[in-house]
Amino acid sequence: MADGLSYSDAGVDLDAAERTKEGLRELVASTRDRFTLSELGQFGGLYQVPDDVEAPVLVSSADGVGTKLKLAFATGRHDTVGQCLVNHCVNDILVQGARPLFFLDYLATGEMDERVVNEVVKGVALACRENACALLGGETAQMPDFYAGDEYDLAGFIVGVVARDRIIDGSAIRTGDALVGLASTGLHTNGYTLARKIVFDVMGLGVDDELPGTGRSVGDELLAVHRSYLGVLRAPLERGVVRGLAHVTGGGIPGNLPRVLPDGLGGEVDRSAWPVPPVFGALADAGAVAREEMDRVFNMGVGMIVVVAPEHAPAVGEAFMDAGVESWTIGRVVEGKGVSYS
Amino acid sequence: MADGLSYSDAGVDLDAAERTKEGLRELVASTRDRFTLSELGQFGGLYQVPDDVEAPVLVSSADGVGTKLKLAFATGRHDTVGQCLVNHCVNDILVQGARPLFFLDYLATGEMDERVVNEVVKGVALACRENACALLGGETAQMPDFYAGDEYDLAGFIVGVVARDRIIDGSAIRTGDALVGLASTGLHTNGYTLARKIVFDVMGLGVDDELPGTGRSVGDELLAVHRSYLGVLRAPLERGVVRGLAHVTGGGIPGNLPRVLPDGLGGEVDRSAWPVPPVFGALADAGAVAREEMDRVFNMGVGMIVVVAPEHAPAVGEAFMDAGVESWTIGRVVEGKGVSYS
Repeated sequence: MADGLSYSDAGVDLDAAERTKEGLRELVASTRDRFTLSELGQFGGLYQVPDDVEAPVLVSSADGVGTKLKLAFATGRHDTVGQCLVNHCVNDILVQGARPLFFLDYLATGEMDERVVNEVVKGVALACRENACALLGGETAQMPDFYAGDEYDLAGFIVGVVARDRIIDGSAIRTGDALVGLASTGLHTNGYTLARKIVFDVMGLGVDDELPGTGRSVGDELLAVHRSYLGVLRAPLERGVVRGLAHVTGGGIPGNLPRVLPDGLGGEVDRSAWPVPPVFGALADAGAVAREEMDRVFNMGVGMIVVVAPEHAPAVGEAFMDAGVESWTIGRVVEGKGVSYS
Repeated sequence: MADGLSYSDAGVDLDAAERTKEGLRELVASTRDRFTLSELGQFGGLYQVPDDVEAPVLVSSADGVGTKLKLAFATGRHDTVGQCLVNHCVNDILVQGARPLFFLDYLATGEMDERVVNEVVKGVALACRENACALLGGETAQMPDFYAGDEYDLAGFIVGVVARDRIIDGSAIRTGDALVGLASTGLHTNGYTLARKIVFDVMGLGVDDELPGTGRSVGDELLAVHRSYLGVLRAPLERGVVRGLAHVTGGGIPGNLPRVLPDGLGGEVDRSAWPVPPVFGALADAGAVAREEMDRVFNMGVGMIVVVAPEHAPAVGEAFMDAGVESWTIGRVVEGKGVSYS
């Protein structure tokens, strides 16, 4: 049978997969907490429901990094996309008032490059530690004729917890409430298909070239890590002053703010209330992208919107500043629906 | 700005994404249970921790379908891979004694083909209902220059629950325990890169051709739905006679049985104890694949191994037969490590 086919002839290397998994053991262990009951390699990850939450409700979300991954491929920097993924998921469940419990990742690749997988999971583990979230497990799949070489797709899944009577569902939002915008760090993880088309095809730049007006290289600017708002929002959430939260992802402010507003209410946003970061101006100029389209595709510098009673806006803004994140009152809640700009 | 770029010029159609999401609403709703507190479209899915489980431990797993997806692309049948995905995840957490609570999917595609996405999620929702598992959310990502046309990758995440003192961790397993194998329905979701190479490249078959010896077409045989063992194992689990479970996935019996055996114990498996289904014989013959390699890549007809005290093996086998799933005592637990064949 010396001429017979093997799995590795077909492009799947089980030994490399095993070595890769072993290399992740320490990274996974670095995220363990007292509720983590399993170790890497078991069929399922085990996590005890914390006993300090009254009437616990699990909040869960799945997400990917989209084609921001193409920037990781182009620069060879694989240690940030995992952070973006975790932080994106953390923000999604934060919107309903939840704190993270655990996270799992799915990484599918053409060839199992141990170094690349390790770098990606290093980013995942780092962000898990920063957000006090256990990396409970994951799947690393070898799909040789699906993904080119060592390219990969990356998805993540988070489970958090909130006490039933602390769920933020937007029902407390009233006309006249203030919309406080928290600064993003750049594109976060949305709009990359358009951004890459403009930067690489229209502008003809490479990843090491400066992105005009930003003072940073294309690689640095477009790989900036999606910010987690868990740290900065914890105190206002505990004080109970947050009436609603909108994570500004795909769809921008008009696509996300209405998701958390009660029926009959809309948002009025003043575009002049915050400085749009240079990266968005550079993209709009070079691509001749209409402002309405920019608003619908990108976060435009606002990564999270916090809805508070107008009298709480100043104190909340100061707390954000003390925590090191810029914020602006970008508008208010009005009768109507959707988002209108002024 | 009539000549400016838009997101849809770059290949991302937000309207199609919105329509697709609307189309999934009913499917998702069909899986709701009394603990599901959220609806499709919220940032995170909300699920109340059931109050009927003492000291609840969450069990979670992430998985993909691998290149079985290529069969869905080749046949245009997209309604089964979602079932495979859910059932695979259900089996993974069943190994530790957990019943499913909720599931989330990640579907990344080149072009948003509403019909295809709908078919895939139809399969996910069907299997969720069959396993009494809520489809709590998911992510559908458009990644135009990542995936060819309407091709897609599909991953899933499951969360289940088990009472802390009912976790199956293999610690009860003793030398002499019986290994009872439960029949698989075919390849389940592993070994497809090798299987496709043999069937399409070596044998030169098309999806509608008969796979020799199986009496079924290549498409029917290779798309057979990964079986969920939740139904058939519920009663033995409740009676407390199950000492260990191994889901036979990538790595086959030798790669998975040792994962659940205590240190110092191994498995002795009698290859003649069960009839290997024709599909595996056809692949081995055409690819001249060594038996050791077949054992390591495929499940060879055994999708789940149940470890029980030898005196319980006959009754457990009868219960499986009554539940409509074939089983065989395929070996026993011995001193040592790994798996040896006789």
